[in-house]
Amino acid sequence: MSEKCRESNCLLRPHFKTHQSKQIGRWFREHGVTGITVSTPEMALYFAEDGWDDITIAFPFYRGQINVIKNLQESASLRLFIHNANDLHLINSELDKPIRFYIELDNGYKRSGISPSDRNRIEAMIHTADKMRNVQFHGFYMHDGRTYQSRSKDGITEAIKSSSMVMKEMKKLYPDAKISMGDTPSASVLPSFEYLDECTAGNFVFYDWMQYRIGSCALDDIALFHMLPVAQAFPDENRAICHGGAVHCSKDYILDDDGSKNYGQLITINNENTINIMDGKLQSLSQEHGMLTVGEKSKNLILSDYVFTIPVHSCLTANLYDHYRALNGEIIKKRILS
Amino acid sequence: MSEKCRESNCLLRPHFKTHQSKQIGRWFREHGVTGITVSTPEMALYFAEDGWDDITIAFPFYRGQINVIKNLQESASLRLFIHNANDLHLINSELDKPIRFYIELDNGYKRSGISPSDRNRIEAMIHTADKMRNVQFHGFYMHDGRTYQSRSKDGITEAIKSSSMVMKEMKKLYPDAKISMGDTPSASVLPSFEYLDECTAGNFVFYDWMQYRIGSCALDDIALFHMLPVAQAFPDENRAICHGGAVHCSKDYILDDDGSKNYGQLITINNENTINIMDGKLQSLSQEHGMLTVGEKSKNLILSDYVFTIPVHSCLTANLYDHYRALNGEIIKKRILS
Repeated sequence: MSEKCRESNCLLRPHFKTHQSKQIGRWFREHGVTGITVSTPEMALYFAEDGWDDITIAFPFYRGQINVIKNLQESASLRLFIHNANDLHLINSELDKPIRFYIELDNGYKRSGISPSDRNRIEAMIHTADKMRNVQFHGFYMHDGRTYQSRSKDGITEAIKSSSMVMKEMKKLYPDAKISMGDTPSASVLPSFEYLDECTAGNFVFYDWMQYRIGSCALDDIALFHMLPVAQAFPDENRAICHGGAVHCSKDYILDDDGSKNYGQLITINNENTINIMDGKLQSLSQEHGMLTVGEKSKNLILSDYVFTIPVHSCLTANLYDHYRALNGEIIKKRILS
Repeated sequence: MSEKCRESNCLLRPHFKTHQSKQIGRWFREHGVTGITVSTPEMALYFAEDGWDDITIAFPFYRGQINVIKNLQESASLRLFIHNANDLHLINSELDKPIRFYIELDNGYKRSGISPSDRNRIEAMIHTADKMRNVQFHGFYMHDGRTYQSRSKDGITEAIKSSSMVMKEMKKLYPDAKISMGDTPSASVLPSFEYLDECTAGNFVFYDWMQYRIGSCALDDIALFHMLPVAQAFPDENRAICHGGAVHCSKDYILDDDGSKNYGQLITINNENTINIMDGKLQSLSQEHGMLTVGEKSKNLILSDYVFTIPVHSCLTANLYDHYRALNGEIIKKRILS
């Protein structure tokens, strides 16, 4: 990702909400990354403690955050998402030094942001900020999560087309504005980022079963696995109870082709660290129990002490742990609780 | 719950996985509770630190737990779930002092446990344990989660009927065995527990929107709420983005009557602490964003700084926080990470 960004003259400001680990953050430094993206001021504080001083908080600013942002400014240069003039006024009057902001654009995903067609509002915000001492318009940000509904590389490329065009258009209208995009699927499959100034994707640090299924990554790109104790095996019923419930996996799922839910894909990892997809999955979860179903070929696995699964959504699974364990046994600490 | 148990001559050993808080645990002591139920040895350690010395670990024992259980035995008398003779042998040889165990029964819920019709296996396990120094058969446990599919008190009573009959039958066959059941819906609506020796329900400490919807509790029985910052309001579109995503709410949902998902029910709480159900809900969640939709009558609420919701599944929501805040402002600490 860092190579592709460099070649495209695009700044990689990866989202660190996926791994939430200072130690993993340092790996990015080795690839030339100097600025990052996070979800909350609290997450920004955690990474600022490790020397990150260029941080985007990629979530709409709200008033309750003003004090922690003021504190944060002592250690890092921040960029916020601001979507109305009231918040510009609040920030301008409350902060002691200037802060940059994005206008988040929503091209139809219907989450946060302003419609790119709402030109009066965009223009008014930029104009308002121009007259302020403590706020500076930085650029436009867009996360188009509709790429997650794809099932192939071509599907992802197609899904991001309209939003890419919108962003190119904004660049023409505001040549000084930075153009920033965020979703891992399109960041993974687009061959280059000519029209982007910044890429803020983050999930690609681990990928997961969902990313693999939608076409973002190859199997061997996946780097987060769940090692789940088998608590009770029912070989005659082709199922087992794992100690891997909602508090370990999260309740995010993906629908398999037969319409059934998949909360975690059964795999094996061989001695060369190659992943093999097995005929089994976590079919349902309660708080502590993971209900694993297996086909005939994977039946022997439930007689082991542990099984391995690929999490459906690595960000949410990682969020439930305070450390990772590398295959060499090394413990990699992370932040807990968002 | 403690009164009903006392009147039924049934021991209340509440499940503490819902609140995971020493401070809340102490409230139970004031109601005469002396023994508790938890999910994991680690959760047992947390409560043992606060003086709880009579603890059931209500999850199938597996080999990886043996060392932490050995440690735990120094501070608490434990009861485990054991479902095969191999584990009885392992425990008997590894532990230094006796431990009690339940045979978990599965009457068709298809999670963990042994079928009550598997009489040979049950008989063999009890017989095996009889000859061992360090394991003692304590009784039968059952959690029939099918009560969660009900939509009324009568539905819950009906759903638990078959499992109640099975447990009565086991009591006749094994008069010395303790009969223990766990689900909050049936524990809440059954008028008494004549056939039970122990009740291990736990969710009733807070209840939640799911329990209310299935008929377990009244609205004013609910005691856990989410106060979510409104990050961006779209009054023209009857929706808002709250700072309340999957990492705050969990991704558990309930289906509303129209088939749409509900990840959190919009409410207001008035000055007398009375709850009013409002026409709005968290309709979808991403990692940090909660997508709140509102009807015309609830539209004004999204113009506030915060909204209140009732979590769909209080156990999973509480699991994502390290403290509660009482309405009087008091901070109640809890354990983090299962």
